[in-house]
Amino acid sequence: MDLPSAILQQAVDQLRTLPGVGARTALRYALHLVQGTEQEARDLADSLLALKTELHHCRLCHNIADSDLCPVCASPKRQRGILCVVENVQGVMAVEATGQYNGLYHVLGGVISPIDGVGINDLELASLTDRVRRADPEPVTEVILALPATMEGDTTAYYIYRQLSPLGVKVTAIARGVSVGDSLEYADEATLGRSIVGRRPFNSEG
Amino acid sequence: MDLPSAILQQAVDQLRTLPGVGARTALRYALHLVQGTEQEARDLADSLLALKTELHHCRLCHNIADSDLCPVCASPKRQRGILCVVENVQGVMAVEATGQYNGLYHVLGGVISPIDGVGINDLELASLTDRVRRADPEPVTEVILALPATMEGDTTAYYIYRQLSPLGVKVTAIARGVSVGDSLEYADEATLGRSIVGRRPFNSEG
Repeated sequence: MDLPSAILQQAVDQLRTLPGVGARTALRYALHLVQGTEQEARDLADSLLALKTELHHCRLCHNIADSDLCPVCASPKRQRGILCVVENVQGVMAVEATGQYNGLYHVLGGVISPIDGVGINDLELASLTDRVRRADPEPVTEVILALPATMEGDTTAYYIYRQLSPLGVKVTAIARGVSVGDSLEYADEATLGRSIVGRRPFNSEG
Repeated sequence: MDLPSAILQQAVDQLRTLPGVGARTALRYALHLVQGTEQEARDLADSLLALKTELHHCRLCHNIADSDLCPVCASPKRQRGILCVVENVQGVMAVEATGQYNGLYHVLGGVISPIDGVGINDLELASLTDRVRRADPEPVTEVILALPATMEGDTTAYYIYRQLSPLGVKVTAIARGVSVGDSLEYADEATLGRSIVGRRPFNSEG
């Protein structure tokens, strides 16, 4: 598609770097901005740039934050002795959305993936061990691994387990199994297999 | 969904103003930027702002342009006595993509729509009549209406027809009919009806 302007082409090329955005969608976004006011374009541009220039990362858990501490770490209501290890911010939001967790987090910033060039030192792994070792402000009694059920997630989980078990902390992982509401015939074999291996005493609460 | 940062929330809110972007997609875009470099975010932000600060509109046809004239109006190869009237830039690109048109354009910037508050003076309608009247640089022999097949498009087409016919210019409209490759049973009644009314002598070129 030939665009009538290099400036429009430039904006389309930039928009195409967003995940899942192709040429047609990028053009739709760009023309929407062309048809809007300059203030609207400026507000959008400023808010996107602020994501890199103004956003902080929590010094404790490395979650996204507006200041030194994220809202979870800053909350006096959370249990500070339990850490939930997640891959990224989306992980924090997914666990928070369940309303079932009241501890703190540790955001790795990815998972170990040699094929993508992500090694141990690219992730917040040393800082996790350090957090457990320091016992500051209070001893960590449990580390819950809530990592993706992929080869990379499993590798990362195993690495963390090896690092933390000498420190005497309890390391657990979220349960893998058939989704709530799913019938068995639609569950994939790997998931059903893990849910059988990970079976637990029946009680009326499920 | 509770976001851990007001800055992130702000970016998500801004991204949601783009057409077809919901909360989930906006968050995906924003987190992609958070995980990228500051230069990447800056390049995107700059290119979006440039759409309003650097983009021009062609002084002849009002298409998007990088300078005083758009590439079509600037081209010495185009027939300058034929104008194709379109709603917006997308219209220009759609007609150009056919490779069947060698005249110039006139971009209205919308269609008459009282319900959306778009009146005659909000569109490039006076400038169209003016272009035909001035006969500059050469007389306009035909004005082709390529407007959307909606109530608003039809209203706009009729208004233009009323303005231009006293000037003695030939006013035509693109054919409406069954799409190439479509079978009759899937064409809607309005389209099929118009294609029967608009039937033309058969020849081997279709």
